[in-house]
Amino acid sequence: MNKVKQISSVQNPLIKKVISLKEKSRDRRKSGLFVIEGLREIELACKGTYSLQSVFICAKIATEESVRQLINTTGYNPELIEVSQEVYQKLAYRKKTEGIIAIACSKDHELNKLSLKSQNPLILVAEAPEKPGNIGALLRTADAANIDAVIIANSNGDLYNPNIIRSSVGCLFTVNVAIGSSEEVINYLRKNNIAIYCAALSASCNYTNVDYKQSSAIVVGTEATGLTSDWLEESDQNVIIPMQGEIDSMNVSVSAAILIFEAKRQRDFL
Amino acid sequence: MNKVKQISSVQNPLIKKVISLKEKSRDRRKSGLFVIEGLREIELACKGTYSLQSVFICAKIATEESVRQLINTTGYNPELIEVSQEVYQKLAYRKKTEGIIAIACSKDHELNKLSLKSQNPLILVAEAPEKPGNIGALLRTADAANIDAVIIANSNGDLYNPNIIRSSVGCLFTVNVAIGSSEEVINYLRKNNIAIYCAALSASCNYTNVDYKQSSAIVVGTEATGLTSDWLEESDQNVIIPMQGEIDSMNVSVSAAILIFEAKRQRDFL
Repeated sequence: MNKVKQISSVQNPLIKKVISLKEKSRDRRKSGLFVIEGLREIELACKGTYSLQSVFICAKIATEESVRQLINTTGYNPELIEVSQEVYQKLAYRKKTEGIIAIACSKDHELNKLSLKSQNPLILVAEAPEKPGNIGALLRTADAANIDAVIIANSNGDLYNPNIIRSSVGCLFTVNVAIGSSEEVINYLRKNNIAIYCAALSASCNYTNVDYKQSSAIVVGTEATGLTSDWLEESDQNVIIPMQGEIDSMNVSVSAAILIFEAKRQRDFL
Repeated sequence: MNKVKQISSVQNPLIKKVISLKEKSRDRRKSGLFVIEGLREIELACKGTYSLQSVFICAKIATEESVRQLINTTGYNPELIEVSQEVYQKLAYRKKTEGIIAIACSKDHELNKLSLKSQNPLILVAEAPEKPGNIGALLRTADAANIDAVIIANSNGDLYNPNIIRSSVGCLFTVNVAIGSSEEVINYLRKNNIAIYCAALSASCNYTNVDYKQSSAIVVGTEATGLTSDWLEESDQNVIIPMQGEIDSMNVSVSAAILIFEAKRQRDFL
């Protein structure tokens, strides 16, 4: 690791840069950089071969142990900056925080660069998910189930939104993620002979009556409006989770988890 | 419905009462009253035989149609109060709101008053859930799966917290809910010959290898610390959802949904 710099002014240009990267999607896109808060998240980013540019540590909060661990995990040589508690509070989102924030380099998430691990992949596709919290929850489930990829079709935002990173508890970095237009994603799935199972209310069969052992993409839309016709017209089979109560919709991250784990069950969790 | 009163001052004692009921758990307990915001939530409360004491309507926001619908749903005769937009903004939490808020009477959730619909009930038990959002999400899944009951063991808060109502999208009113100490809940389950399946990491078998067709209680703990020994010692079988990625825990509402819907699958969704 590089020599330690020290910053105690919130007016410091580097501190202003971190704040701008946290708040402005445009700045993240332009610079190809983003901000990660928290030890576990930074560790997962390092595991996921993200490279860190700068690491900010608040000595009053971060334990020596945590810094040492971080040094051990990163193969890189990020600039290490010690910041005052006042500066750290300005940078940090969390109350219970570990005193560590990093600037990292974003990755390319083009579909044509997506490499699938298994011969009969299991993929989750989310069409135009709106809430960062929902995207984070989907990524968390995708990590737990160790599926081959999560593909975001017609993404409205950028993946490096701090709320996505936070709600994914760092699984943004551990999951194979790609982004494309619905048309591109459909073409990709067709080209790779991956069956399209759309979660939808109409023309659907019970989600447990479908064979997910073959190459499969489970496709979910938004809670409010579901999937667009782009997807429904291309669906090999619509699937439905029976709703037997008073309400007619489930949280998208909950329904995606039920579908993914049914597929995992059929695949004997292999 | 009663004659319409009108209130345009935020200083009005009744308005202050609503705000106090929203904010203070103690006031809710003492009075046996709580606040419901939103048309759908109020309708579900009426369906769930909750009685409304007062209904506040902001004529500028609420559509005539929605008020008419409400009158149709309630068999009761609540006091109807028209409030100014200024007063309504003070009362409402949501930005996109329907212009309707009600004061309702709470119910008793004692275990010994819990009546189970089916002969081989399926029950979800949550031990000391912390976040209102998680409790709401559990209730939403419980409604969708139409399970027999949700039992909260060692509850830390009161069920009528506005955040629980909101995150449950009104399913607090549609689901059979009981509250008790862990000891009371365990005794209840034993007495009713309901098998206890604890979601736990140790001494667990894969959650798909358990027979949920008999009377079953799926028991989940907190995300941070899991279940206490009170439960683990009484477990008939611990169950685990295989975690095959980098992280070691799932959101409690996601894992509960996976377990509940596996039970539903085994029961042919009957």
